[in-house]
Amino acid sequence: MELMEQKIRKEGKVLPGGILKVGSFLNQQIDTDFLGKIGSEIARLFDGCGVTKVLTIESSGIAIAAAAGMAMKVPLVFAKKHKTSNVDGSTYATVVHSYTHNTDYTVVVSSDYLLPTDRVLLVDDFLANGKALMGLIDLVNQAGATLVGAACAIEKGFQGGGDGLRAQGIRVESLAVIESMSDSDITFRR
Amino acid sequence: MELMEQKIRKEGKVLPGGILKVGSFLNQQIDTDFLGKIGSEIARLFDGCGVTKVLTIESSGIAIAAAAGMAMKVPLVFAKKHKTSNVDGSTYATVVHSYTHNTDYTVVVSSDYLLPTDRVLLVDDFLANGKALMGLIDLVNQAGATLVGAACAIEKGFQGGGDGLRAQGIRVESLAVIESMSDSDITFRR
Repeated sequence: MELMEQKIRKEGKVLPGGILKVGSFLNQQIDTDFLGKIGSEIARLFDGCGVTKVLTIESSGIAIAAAAGMAMKVPLVFAKKHKTSNVDGSTYATVVHSYTHNTDYTVVVSSDYLLPTDRVLLVDDFLANGKALMGLIDLVNQAGATLVGAACAIEKGFQGGGDGLRAQGIRVESLAVIESMSDSDITFRR
Repeated sequence: MELMEQKIRKEGKVLPGGILKVGSFLNQQIDTDFLGKIGSEIARLFDGCGVTKVLTIESSGIAIAAAAGMAMKVPLVFAKKHKTSNVDGSTYATVVHSYTHNTDYTVVVSSDYLLPTDRVLLVDDFLANGKALMGLIDLVNQAGATLVGAACAIEKGFQGGGDGLRAQGIRVESLAVIESMSDSDITFRR
């Protein structure tokens, strides 16, 4: 998606530790016109795949997943990062390692919202080492649902998570794939 | 909004402790067709008010705020619940008490994303005692921005937070206001 690359080049900032800050348009502050286009592009990429549900993890993926769900006219489900008092009944849970925060957390989704009949598209803002998506895949498998694929706004190709998932036969579509980045330059995969 | 009341009646569940579970359509699982309608209704209510930005707190308010921002064609900003490594620069921060989790947490927003020139609409899924909105109002005031009002999907009228804010002259629009609820019945404000 050409527009995603333009936005990253124009507004993204590379911070120490390999962190790409896109807070001005994708995370913290979200350009909602752009968000609508992201949703439409994800819907276009997975058109005809019979997706019945979009699944993400709170919280930075929710806006993109909502836009994708609206464009695809299917419900959005977001897995929560810990069991809260307003999730009752039985749940599926898995442990995910966060690269950004360097910590493990438990991700939970109610079994009411992931069904064996569901065809699930995973959606997230960033794909780095792929741990978050692997956690979501585990939840999809626990539910006995079908995984259609994963759509991410920005993939850090140099961290290898996306290619690892593709090597397992999973369809992964990222709207921009960063091959390398430094303070002064960002190179996209062609 | 008649449709919100119908959804609550049909799919909402009252849990012990005065918790209304709307996980099947508004929180955890989100009906995206309904979400689009919520966004349009909020845009209609605040049409002509010169809103330049929608502000919410992660994470359950993000989808609704995104839908509102898309319908109003203004950016969405979400305040984060703790300082993370990908928020740099100066920030506005405030402490909020969570009724659901019975704990205090710090809410942070980068000063880059709330400007003195902004006219801000607060958006959230639930309005109970109003503590979350009061925290967001504090952030708006710290930024020297103008508060236009607040839009919430569901207000628990019996907890008084919404009326307290209205008594301060703040415009608060809730798409459904619950006057009382029990296991067997939910009464809406007329």
